[in-house]
Formats: sequence, C-alpha cells, structure tokens
Amino acid sequence: MSADKDVGREMHALARRLFPICRSLTGNGVRETLAILRKHIPLKIREIPSGTRVFDWTIPLEWNIRDAYVADERGSRVIDFKKHNLHVVGYSTPIDRKMPLEELQKHLYSLPAQPSAIPYVTSYYKRRWGFCLAHGDRLRLKKGIYRVVVDSTLKKGSLTYGELIIPGKRKEEVFFSTYVCHPSMANNELSGPVVLTELAKFIMRNPRRYTYRIIFIPETIGALAYLSRHAREMQKNTIAGFTITCVGDNRMYSYIPSRHGNTLADKVARRVLRRLHPKFKEWSFLDRGSDERQYCSMPFDLPVVSIMRTKYGTYPEYHTSLDDFRVVTPTGLEGAYRVYKACIEHLEQTRRYRAIIPGEPQLGKRHLYSTKGKSIDRRTKTYFDILAYADGTNDVEDLSKLIKVRAAEVYGAIKVLLNAKLLKEV
Amino acid sequence: MSADKDVGREMHALARRLFPICRSLTGNGVRETLAILRKHIPLKIREIPSGTRVFDWTIPLEWNIRDAYVADERGSRVIDFKKHNLHVVGYSTPIDRKMPLEELQKHLYSLPAQPSAIPYVTSYYKRRWGFCLAHGDRLRLKKGIYRVVVDSTLKKGSLTYGELIIPGKRKEEVFFSTYVCHPSMANNELSGPVVLTELAKFIMRNPRRYTYRIIFIPETIGALAYLSRHAREMQKNTIAGFTITCVGDNRMYSYIPSRHGNTLADKVARRVLRRLHPKFKEWSFLDRGSDERQYCSMPFDLPVVSIMRTKYGTYPEYHTSLDDFRVVTPTGLEGAYRVYKACIEHLEQTRRYRAIIPGEPQLGKRHLYSTKGKSIDRRTKTYFDILAYADGTNDVEDLSKLIKVRAAEVYGAIKVLLNAKLLKEV
Amino acid sequence: MSADKDVGREMHALARRLFPICRSLTGNGVRETLAILRKHIPLKIREIPSGTRVFDWTIPLEWNIRDAYVADERGSRVIDFKKHNLHVVGYSTPIDRKMPLEELQKHLYSLPAQPSAIPYVTSYYKRRWGFCLAHGDRLRLKKGIYRVVVDSTLKKGSLTYGELIIPGKRKEEVFFSTYVCHPSMANNELSGPVVLTELAKFIMRNPRRYTYRIIFIPETIGALAYLSRHAREMQKNTIAGFTITCVGDNRMYSYIPSRHGNTLADKVARRVLRRLHPKFKEWSFLDRGSDERQYCSMPFDLPVVSIMRTKYGTYPEYHTSLDDFRVVTPTGLEGAYRVYKACIEHLEQTRRYRAIIPGEPQLGKRHLYSTKGKSIDRRTKTYFDILAYADGTNDVEDLSKLIKVRAAEVYGAIKVLLNAKLLKEV
Repeated sequence: MSADKDVGREMHALARRLFPICRSLTGNGVRETLAILRKHIPLKIREIPSGTRVFDWTIPLEWNIRDAYVADERGSRVIDFKKHNLHVVGYSTPIDRKMPLEELQKHLYSLPAQPSAIPYVTSYYKRRWGFCLAHGDRLRLKKGIYRVVVDSTLKKGSLTYGELIIPGKRKEEVFFSTYVCHPSMANNELSGPVVLTELAKFIMRNPRRYTYRIIFIPETIGALAYLSRHAREMQKNTIAGFTITCVGDNRMYSYIPSRHGNTLADKVARRVLRRLHPKFKEWSFLDRGSDERQYCSMPFDLPVVSIMRTKYGTYPEYHTSLDDFRVVTPTGLEGAYRVYKACIEHLEQTRRYRAIIPGEPQLGKRHLYSTKGKSIDRRTKTYFDILAYADGTNDVEDLSKLIKVRAAEVYGAIKVLLNAKLLKEV
Repeated sequence: MSADKDVGREMHALARRLFPICRSLTGNGVRETLAILRKHIPLKIREIPSGTRVFDWTIPLEWNIRDAYVADERGSRVIDFKKHNLHVVGYSTPIDRKMPLEELQKHLYSLPAQPSAIPYVTSYYKRRWGFCLAHGDRLRLKKGIYRVVVDSTLKKGSLTYGELIIPGKRKEEVFFSTYVCHPSMANNELSGPVVLTELAKFIMRNPRRYTYRIIFIPETIGALAYLSRHAREMQKNTIAGFTITCVGDNRMYSYIPSRHGNTLADKVARRVLRRLHPKFKEWSFLDRGSDERQYCSMPFDLPVVSIMRTKYGTYPEYHTSLDDFRVVTPTGLEGAYRVYKACIEHLEQTRRYRAIIPGEPQLGKRHLYSTKGKSIDRRTKTYFDILAYADGTNDVEDLSKLIKVRAAEVYGAIKVLLNAKLLKEV
Repeated sequence: MSADKDVGREMHALARRLFPICRSLTGNGVRETLAILRKHIPLKIREIPSGTRVFDWTIPLEWNIRDAYVADERGSRVIDFKKHNLHVVGYSTPIDRKMPLEELQKHLYSLPAQPSAIPYVTSYYKRRWGFCLAHGDRLRLKKGIYRVVVDSTLKKGSLTYGELIIPGKRKEEVFFSTYVCHPSMANNELSGPVVLTELAKFIMRNPRRYTYRIIFIPETIGALAYLSRHAREMQKNTIAGFTITCVGDNRMYSYIPSRHGNTLADKVARRVLRRLHPKFKEWSFLDRGSDERQYCSMPFDLPVVSIMRTKYGTYPEYHTSLDDFRVVTPTGLEGAYRVYKACIEHLEQTRRYRAIIPGEPQLGKRHLYSTKGKSIDRRTKTYFDILAYADGTNDVEDLSKLIKVRAAEVYGAIKVLLNAKLLKEV
C-alpha cells in the first residue's frame, strides 16, 4: 500500500490546528472542526435539530460562546476564556454580574491535587454557569467584588456530526467512530479525529473489499443519535467496529473487548496487537467508557472494540489543561495509526477458503508437486494440508495454526492454489 | 418473610407425635400420619387401589396390623410389637402357631454388629412373616416352645398418599417429595415429612411466583405411581425438584445432584449450600438411593436433587431402632429447613432481566448519575454494567459474576433500575 | 471367535508368495496379485479403462513389462530386472539402444547414503525410462558403451482393483482400504494386503452386525477412482474406516487420526491401542501420507484413520529393496492383525442402549434385586446405574466411565438386562 511516512507529523500538525477551537456537544466549534477535516476527507456534515428525541434522550439547545471572563475591581481579567477555553464550564448560561468573591467561589472548579491544571467541566443537562481554573490561581484570588461575564447563547439549533461512507465491493461494513465534542485537549479529543482522518485517507486510496462507515460525532448523545438513525443497517452489516479515542500518547497500547469478547473485531484486534505490541494491556469490557458503551449496549450489541494508547481516565493529564502536546506526540499518533491500519489490512486479507476439486488434485500436472528424497517436499505438503482444511471455515491464520506453517507461507501457498483454481474464497 | 423461630422445636414435636404410628407401604398407619399432617397443611389424600398396574409394578394388597408377639411357655411376651413396631417384619402374613425355638429362629432378624438395635426389615413382594429384635435379646432366648402371633391382614385396599398443589402466578413448578412408609424411625422417615410440612406452611404464607407441587408418598412404588399419573405435566412444568429425606440430624449437610448435574435445581442447591454451609458434602448421582432414583430415571429425567443432613446408609443408626430422637434434634431439623427455605427464596428471587431503553439511558435526568473526581462513581457504573448485560439470560448471581460486584449490591441496583423503568423481568 | 494361531506365519507365507510379482499402478502384476488373494477371499475384480476421468485425474495407459536390463560391451547384464524388479523405474517407456556410460548415468537412480539399497522410483505421469541400482554397484560401472533394453508396453488398458462387500445385518459400513501398486517391497506394500486378507477371513467367519467394504486398490488414483464411483454411499453409510499399510514390522505401533480426530474410528483405534499397546505413537493428521489423504479430503471427509506398525517414511528401509523379509516378520504381521481384529470386535460390540421400562423396574420379581446388610449390593446397583444412563447415547465404555464400574462387569450386567427385557439396543 502507499507511502505514509511523515504520517505522524501530519496528524500532529492537524491536531495542533484543531486544538484552539472551542468544541462542545453542539455549536460552531464542532462545525469548524468538521469543516477543517472535510478538507482532508469528503465528510458529509449532518445536523440533528434541538429537541429531537433520541431514545431516552433529547438533543439539547445549541450552545455558542463568544467571550467569558472574571475581572477584578480594576477591570483586570483574572480568569479569561480567551486564554484557555477550558476556563469556562461547558454549556455555561449567559451572565454579566458583579459579585463578591464568596459568591463567585460557588461557581469555581479547580483540582487541589493538580494545582497547575485547569479542569474540564461541563453541565449539558443542568443549567448553570461556572469557571475552571488552576488551584494555585484560585488560592491567589483576593477578597473583593468581581465582574463575571459569560457571553454565550443557548438557542434552538442542532447537534452536528460528520459521516463518511466509503463503499467497498461488499455491503458488509467495518465501522469506525471517534468523537468531536471536547474543547482544547489533545489526547482525549483530537488524537481520535486526526488518526481516523488519516485512516480514512488510507482506506480511500486502496482497493477494498468491505464498505467502511466512519463517523465523527459528539460523545454519548451523538452516538445514540446515530444509532437511532442507522442501528438496523449497522446490526445487519457490521462485521467489526472500532471506537478510536486516546490514541496520541506514546506510553502503551491497550484494548477494550466487545461485550461478547470473541467477535471478529476482537480476534483482529488481539492478533494485530499480539504481533505488533505483545505487551499491550487488555482491559475488561467493564472498563469501557467511551461510545462503545452505546454501540455494545442492548439491543444493538454491535461487535465494537477500542484499541487505545493509554486509556482515558488512567493517565494523570486526563480531562485537564495538561492534556496537550506534551502528552500527544507524532510518534504516539503514528503508533496508533499503524495498529489500526494493520487491523484494516488484516480484515481485508482475512478470507475463508474452500477446496474446489473433490479429493486431492493432481499437483504434478500443474508443476506443483515435488519430492525430496523419499517424501514430498514441504511446499507440496503445505498445498495438500491447506486443501485438506479448506472447508470454508478457516482463514489464513486459522490454517496456519492448524497445519503448523507460518501464516506468510500459508498465504503464499493460497495464492498459488487460487491461481491454479484449486481453491476459492467463500 | 414471616417469623419462624421455634420452628425446630415445632417440627420436632410433630415428629415425636408421628413416631409411634406403624406406617408401611400401605395401610392405616399412612392414613393416620397424613391425617395429622393435614391439620397443618391442606393436603389432598389420594388412594390408588391394590392391583393397579404402575409401569413395571403392581400396587400390592393393603397391609394392616393390630398386634404381634412371641410368647414363651409361660405366656410372657418375649418379643412384642406393642413395645416397638420394628419388632415385626413389614408386610408379615398372619399367623398364630406354637413352634420350638429352632423353627422360630428362621424367622428372626437381628444385627450381631449392633446388638442393642432392632433392625428394620420388610417383605413387600414376597409373602413371609418374621420378627426383628436386638441381637442381645435374641441370644437370651431359651430353648422351648413359643407361641407366635401376627394379627395382620393383607387385603384388597389401596396405597395412600398426600398431595398439595400451591398455585403461584406462573405454571412453572417447583417440586418437593418426601416419603411416608417407614414405621418408628426418626431421621429416615419423619424428618422428611415434618420439614416438608413446615416448608409448605412457609410457601403458603408468602407471595409466590411459581407453583409448588408437594407430595408425601410411599417410597419407590408410590413415586412411580405418582409419575404414572403426572409425569407428562411434571416434565413440562418442573423447573426444579427436591427429594427431602434424612434431614433431622445435626452432623453435616450433603447433596446428591440430578442425573445431568447442572439443572436449575443443582445450581440453586449448590449456591445455597456454598453460602450457608460451605463444608457440605457433594455426593455423586451414583450415590442416589431415594425417590430421585425414580424422578431422574429414563424417560422422566426430571431436574430433581436431594439436599440432606447425613445421607441414608451412611450413619450407624440407619434402618434400626436406634434412629430415634437421639439422632433427630430440633437444631438438626431447623438447619435443613433453613437450607430448603433459602432454596425456595433463591428460586423465587431468581429473575432474568432485560434492558428496556435502547442504548444507555440518560441517568442524569433520573438523578442516578454522579461522578466522583474525573470518573463516574461505582453506583452509576453498576447501573451501566447491569444494563449492558441485561440481555434476558442473566440473573442476579450471573450479573454479579459478570460485572464483579457483590450480589446484594447488584440486587439493590436492579431494584432502582426496575423502579426507574429501565429494566424489566423476563 | 475362532482359532487364528499360526495366523502370523500364514500371512507371512502369502506375502512371500506375492513378493516377486512386479506390481505397478496398472498392469498384469496387479491382476496376478488379486488373483492369488481371490483364492483366499471372494474378491470381485474391477477394471477402469485408461482415459477415464477421475475428478482432477485421468486413468493412465496400462503398463506391462517383460524384461529390462543394461548390458556391458561383453553382453553381460550389469543391471537386470529379472534379478529385482525395483531395478526398473516404474512406467519406464520401451527402449533398446546403445549409449555411453555418461548418457546412461542421466537415467540411473541410486542412494549414496544407503549404498547397498536399490531405490524405488516411478514416473507415472511423465514419460521417461530409467534404472535403479545400489550406489555401490553404480560406482563400479566402467566407462564404455552399454546396451539399454526396456521391453515394456504402454497401451490402452485399465486400472485394476479388488473389492469385497461383506454384508451385515445393517447397512452401516466399516471400511478397509489397502493398496496394491508397489513392486517387490514387503512392509510398504505386501503387509497391508495380507493383513487385510486375513481380516476379511475373520470377518466372514463370524456373525456380524455391520456391512464391511474392503478394497485392494492402487494408491491415490485408485482411491480417487473408487471414491468417484462410491463416495455418495460411503459418506452416507461409513461409520468407521481404516487405511491399512506398513503393518508388517515388529518395531512399534502408531496411529494417524482422521481429519476431525474424534470420529468413531478414532475412538475405537485409541481405545484398542491404549489397551493392547499403550506405548503406541499418535501421529498428527498432518503426517498422513497414504489413501487417508483422499478419504479424509474435501468434500468426502470420511471418518478414516490408519493404524500402522512403523509409519511409512519413518523407517530406513522404506521405498528401497531393503524393505524385505528382514523387516516384515510373522510376529510383526500378527501384532497388527490382532489390533485390527480388536477394533472390529470393539465396533461390533459397541452398542448404545436405552432403558425400556419407564422408571426403575421391579428387579425383585426378576430375582435381580438383593441387599447386603442395609444397602443394595453392588450388582443390583450396577443394574440401576446402567438403566439410569441408558438414554441411547452411551456404549459399554461410556457407561463404564459414567458409573465407575469395569467395562467387563458393565457388559455382563447389560446382558442380564437385555435378557430381562429391561434394556434394548439402539
């Protein structure tokens, strides 16, 4: 397949470009993000109006924000949304009011254990306003009257997501999902979209057997909204699915199995990780936390797994302003990209075979039969053994295990047998 | 559920009241016993006429006995049925004859290894008469002429059993069987009926889901006779069955699995015993010896197990006059009662669940969602994990194992989810 | 069953008689061999014309040879087919020509590592001529002109095989196959036909339940030709099959499983070998090399295994003139015969049983019930346990394992239960 050197640096550059945008569950930040991705891949942008019922949920009002700050008595901004968009609690209602520090304190969020980190806080479904700041800065706030300004709007609008269907020869689908709904955080937001964008490019520039369904969507309610529109066809067609998140650091590889733990997606993920990164950590399905929660839930029960670098919730910078480009590196992104690429290649290459000719074929007349000394040679034996087990249920790796020959050698022999019309794919 | 303190003493008192009655395979002793039990629970008394074919068997003539003794030359009773009804071989034919000791000896039964015990002997299907006595007493019999009297009748009559169907909300049945056919023995006869009587009272005074089929029946031919009448419906409806016998001593707990060893009855019995008496002994199905022999036989193959205290045949007093109230104690009976009660409660509580809402519900609007620090808290996670596995096949203990949360906690969370209409029973 | 002492010596004598005949894939050598076997067992001789399509193969022209030699300048035969028929490459085309040693060398085959052995070489599907000789003799050939004569014919004719169907009470079949296509080699040719001939005699002189399908056939194309005629009925009827080859030496016992590894044939082969020769070697299906390659291939997938003494390809004399009666001994042949005989007996004795009477039968009225002390005795318990597990799926050895009673004892008890009409075969 084609050259993808520098792919790590390209993904990293794209992530840096997307970093400053203030994304949320809805609003122009998501639209702006998808518009930039659309320059790389032909995303369709979809909108679901506020108020739409989505199973147990309702699409909320659209939130947009222009400015927000807390200013001291001299008019000096002590907390400023323009410096870091994590300073404002997501979905903060508009306000412009003066108040003493004691009242302001009830609306401030900080992390005593990580005094230099601005925490990430949202309030999608309860109306409130608030500011987040480093605990060190909070301690330095002096008594006095502060002006509090949130210049935001909460209005009827829509939830926005991006969708890309890359048709293959077959209607069976491979599904990829990542989320776009967090403001300026690198690993637990942007690593997913940039890796998935690069994977989409890889898929599009290669011949493919399967159809690929790729979505960039706000977490949870976005995934449910998507399921509410597409669950039936996805249940029918999806042979393997992947939630891509937290794929930018360079610390480890990890994997969350599907609910059943033994789907084709699990088989492929485990095979690829064992091969490329045998020390990867396998989490339990109980440790799931992103949109595989929706895809694997009743009654959808899709075969969706998640391969990550370091899992959300298990690295110290998670959900704070520290989740930036000291965490996410070109090498980290590239490692994840290569693993997912290998999964796609594996899926594309995974074929099951059936012998065509009843009994053993006459390999001699096809110049495929040779003997060394008294016995048939290893290559001929491989042909016979593949044909013996080619009963329509075994793929290359299954055959490799059954006949105790390396997969690459099995694959080579299968090509010969396919050419010789002794074997067919099923 | 309701108070059952003193239940051990009550069962013990009932057993003492039933002890003197001379029961056999048929006859008035069984009727008298069932009449007393009927004062506690609304048993239906059923009669099956002598001569009725029951699969490979035929209901025998009815046996009744008024008196029986062996008197010496001075008219003094050296063996006397009135002193202990085990002195007469069950189903002894009538006789009134004088004979020398040598002839009498051929009709005497005693246990040299247990010289103070009167053995329990019957001859249901071969006509004979005989007396049982302590081996010590036998050795003291002097040469001479003895008068032998058995004042019994063997006439067309019937086999008698008691049946109690306690209807539940569903037609699926839980089956309990105990036997009434042995004369004065405490553990290997009366412990079963008194524990089952108490269980029937417990079942009746509580709301219930399942229907309960409870029988008090002569062993073997009684069980077969019952199957000949009810096998079809029992095969259709029985979800779990229990043979109750030898449940009165306080030495140990033991369990005989069903033929398949993995039915719901087995699952419940093992779970309850592991919880309450983890040192219980698990016998093999090959060790079966009471009416589970019939219920589990081809072609009935019912899911019937037996939970006992000390198994028949494995305690020294078994089938002798020593099986009395030195063996059976209030504590012993109560222990067995509590295990069976726990089985019933477990069966009644065992529900399988299915999530109602597609995808994850919005727990926040139901005040069921909370986060501690950066991640959702344990309780919220339990809700999500239960919903993820609530696919209609898992009960509380299955869910507990799957999501690695204590069963009590799972049960609590399920109640919340049921109330919130997020979960339903199947 | 009947006397078969001296069976080893008889098989050995027959093998010696067949040894000098020059067999090949086709031709009079095979016919002569089958004609001799036919004096022992009523083989039907079948012919398939040259040119017949057999799946991927075509029956070749028939090859016959009268004489062949290489003579030196003085007319002295330095290589002589009349001394050993391995001297000629099988299917050598006719020739009568003089040539210098250098040209002759291109048509000579010898084994430097085994300098006293004449190798076995054939060229069925490519037209060539050649001679095989001991490497020591080859080195002694002097420069000069040699006359090369092969007096052979390659003409339209047929492939010949022998077939014997021994009908049993049932149409389910046991299948045996051995090959007749190699010239003078003892273990890797004649041990198979002589052992199978003796087995056929054994089968015919005993009452039998199953039908036996026995073939003596040229390897590979013969087996495929047979499958092309009979695969459908064989797939329907074959309950177990065996390829008999390399059964004449006295060094070891070995076994190649079927493709599935758990068919009735595998079960029987393993049981018999474990009993008679517990140190036997179990090869993998991947080690297969004779006609089980065809019988087990897609789509036939027959339950065929191979029990051998020392496997082809794994003993030093294999495929050379050293494979003679220093390798094959009466004891060696007899050992293999006894193993296969035990397999037949095991198959014939293997019955599955079903209890006839619902519930436990009344053993007392059949004089099958007895008690010792307080409990039923071992024999009675065996009856009950057999009946409990006689659900139509278990044979004697299965029952033995299930009820933990020696198989011989189970078998004895089954006979009693069959006589008593309590059990039936399924």
